[in-house]
Amino acid sequence: MKNRKILLEENEIPHQWYNILADMPNKPLPPISPATLEPIGPEDLAPLFPMELIKQEVSAEKWIDIPDEVRNIYSLWRPTPLYRAYGLEKTLDTPAKIYYKYEGVSPSGSHKPNTAVPQAYYNAKEGVKKITTETGAGQWGSALSFACNHFGMECEVYMVRVSYDGKPYRKIMMNTWGASVYPSPSNRTAAGRKILAEHPDSPGSLGIAISEAIEVAASDPNTKYSLGSVLNHVKLHQTIIGQEAIKQMEKAGDMPDIVIAPFGGGSNFAGLSFPFLRLNLEEGKKIRFIASEPSSCPKLTRGVFRYDFGDTIGMTPLLPMYTLGHNFVPAPIHAGGLRYHGAGVIVSQLLRDNLIEAVSHDNIEVFEAGVLFAQAEGIISAPEATHGIATAIAEARKCKEEGVSKTILFNLCGHGNFDMKAYQDYFEGKIVKHEITEEDIRKSLAELNTPEIA
Amino acid sequence: MKNRKILLEENEIPHQWYNILADMPNKPLPPISPATLEPIGPEDLAPLFPMELIKQEVSAEKWIDIPDEVRNIYSLWRPTPLYRAYGLEKTLDTPAKIYYKYEGVSPSGSHKPNTAVPQAYYNAKEGVKKITTETGAGQWGSALSFACNHFGMECEVYMVRVSYDGKPYRKIMMNTWGASVYPSPSNRTAAGRKILAEHPDSPGSLGIAISEAIEVAASDPNTKYSLGSVLNHVKLHQTIIGQEAIKQMEKAGDMPDIVIAPFGGGSNFAGLSFPFLRLNLEEGKKIRFIASEPSSCPKLTRGVFRYDFGDTIGMTPLLPMYTLGHNFVPAPIHAGGLRYHGAGVIVSQLLRDNLIEAVSHDNIEVFEAGVLFAQAEGIISAPEATHGIATAIAEARKCKEEGVSKTILFNLCGHGNFDMKAYQDYFEGKIVKHEITEEDIRKSLAELNTPEIA
Repeated sequence: MKNRKILLEENEIPHQWYNILADMPNKPLPPISPATLEPIGPEDLAPLFPMELIKQEVSAEKWIDIPDEVRNIYSLWRPTPLYRAYGLEKTLDTPAKIYYKYEGVSPSGSHKPNTAVPQAYYNAKEGVKKITTETGAGQWGSALSFACNHFGMECEVYMVRVSYDGKPYRKIMMNTWGASVYPSPSNRTAAGRKILAEHPDSPGSLGIAISEAIEVAASDPNTKYSLGSVLNHVKLHQTIIGQEAIKQMEKAGDMPDIVIAPFGGGSNFAGLSFPFLRLNLEEGKKIRFIASEPSSCPKLTRGVFRYDFGDTIGMTPLLPMYTLGHNFVPAPIHAGGLRYHGAGVIVSQLLRDNLIEAVSHDNIEVFEAGVLFAQAEGIISAPEATHGIATAIAEARKCKEEGVSKTILFNLCGHGNFDMKAYQDYFEGKIVKHEITEEDIRKSLAELNTPEIA
Repeated sequence: MKNRKILLEENEIPHQWYNILADMPNKPLPPISPATLEPIGPEDLAPLFPMELIKQEVSAEKWIDIPDEVRNIYSLWRPTPLYRAYGLEKTLDTPAKIYYKYEGVSPSGSHKPNTAVPQAYYNAKEGVKKITTETGAGQWGSALSFACNHFGMECEVYMVRVSYDGKPYRKIMMNTWGASVYPSPSNRTAAGRKILAEHPDSPGSLGIAISEAIEVAASDPNTKYSLGSVLNHVKLHQTIIGQEAIKQMEKAGDMPDIVIAPFGGGSNFAGLSFPFLRLNLEEGKKIRFIASEPSSCPKLTRGVFRYDFGDTIGMTPLLPMYTLGHNFVPAPIHAGGLRYHGAGVIVSQLLRDNLIEAVSHDNIEVFEAGVLFAQAEGIISAPEATHGIATAIAEARKCKEEGVSKTILFNLCGHGNFDMKAYQDYFEGKIVKHEITEEDIRKSLAELNTPEIA
């Protein structure tokens, strides 16, 4: 009988995160203040984040120790399994060898707790009593609720109104771990009250929810704010995925030719790929890295590289990133975690330097891939995760056409147990393609008055 | 750092199921025909089940080989992890050592695929093209859909109307694995049409859904029927849980004093406990076994031991079982998998012989236990599974009171990702106790005209 799962023991959970900033041939440009256009410093971030996370955000150290307290909570679900996808290979009749790292085994069902736990830990250690955050579909809010509960901290989640009403089960999950969840816009903040005064029936948006969460954190010295993607320290924490995967690929006596992950803000992609990318940078390996984004939100494949805000309202520093413009409103696809206008700073620089690639898939293609995968491998994936599957399938089919065997590894970042409505829409023919024209992109970018990058 | 998870490799998946019938000091009385009151034979079951499963149902062999094809599919999620519940022990401040076997890692999220896969396999091997079944909340229907998909067989699920309407995501899960799902009563069968003619708005019941599934199977030689609990061969297949757990407890250098599992029809309880019970029977160990049932459906703790029908309509053979009467209608608790009037034949005999014990918990107590567990261990459990947690907590608290350290093992049979509505009801104070009076039980039993057992 062939072995499907390559497992590690808990004592094999990595002891350090990998900081790719130390190895990048071209370092990213600095974040700058929208007011002065000067680089911002750590002190500008202090009202929102604990000092240890700010240090990690700008650290040049290649390896950063994972505290034992964090490894201890990681051990509730880590190391996660690496699967050899024998079922998928057979279905595709491909000579390719396909592996996937499965992050859906975490309590909240995705890779998000990998950073929620250390973020909660460092906040607790610095005496923070409460963390605020925003959440759309709820993956990030769930992960942070779970993490805060473990360190006895309050967690206050501003959940986009339309998701709060439409995805009540994610809210209940957060409540079960002791978090308070408020629909955003809410009456709890000036930002929320302002919106509600003008639009009492506002469905909310991530931008508004961020404003509310930041306002609450900034107005109380015992409260900080937390973000689930985009930032350097978030990507750093996620490298635990790729580091485990390297050990597991070695155990399987194999090494990927292609590494694939879905792309939203970049933490999922960074998590699996950066540790393998180190092998290219250090040892001259030739692994390909493919970020897989929805064609309805194609910042990597069709965006521009320039300074832009991280949020839609313009409260954050300006970041050098591939972006569709911070006012770009992606179509309401089910893969809510990929509906973000920009790409994190590190990933943007890596793409600019041709160290990674990007592809996009339309909304129908990814559900076809998700159903095919569920039938071949059993696991029903989150809509975000189906993007990685779709790219892996495309590469495996290419192997068949070309008659070559390659080793493909992708990140299956979460299960779809809270996303069955998306599959229902697919079966009922309600999923549409959401084509974006050059004109749409030009229009969104034309509104930007942020600095361009030569 | 303490090790939480005790893992096994895929080559440690057991090669045989354990058949406790071979070791029971008193064998169960035979099933009898309701018409003749004579014992029924294998040929009576042939229209519904493939011959290999009928053989297993009555086998006296102690060990039954698990086919490689079944072990191969098992390896998609098995061996399942055994957890040392350090978080729960700390929360309870108990000297007890608590372990749980986690079956929620299967694709459908519970222990049910352990029997769905071999049932589908034996059917496929004997040329069956389609399997029909009933499902209430959807756990069993999901598991069988997943299993049939792997062997290229059709799966036709009759889902109780009220669940079909109220739990659409379970239906979509079945569709994703290629199954057809019909609300029951349906127009597809004489039984369904009869009910609909009288009650066009019938919410359905498991009894009706069973009738529809059996009717379809019995009327087509290429179609068979499948049941997810109660029967001997179902319990047999579930013993893979306990056999893995023995290996894992040995690896942990420990052995349970008390083994606990939720109790519906008995397959979950049998799965974990029978292999450990073998150690009592063979080696004179003194392990206690506790079946944990809802106080709203207390067949083990308050029912009578007599012949009764397995279904509510009276289509099955008469089985010697602890029962509340086949017309007993349990309160609509969220733990739908435990809302069954009777206990499987083997478990009933074991209880009668004092080889196992039973306790009951009310509906509020189990959700308190479920929330406490989610906060201590991360995993949000299915409502069925919270019954095992509640018993384990009660035993661990007893250890604290008495100042003794015991080793407690329980079966965490499934996750609660599809059951968040239940937690919502709990948080909103909508969960009630559902007390049952002696009069309720007397009344239900008074209607029985089935043979009593001296």
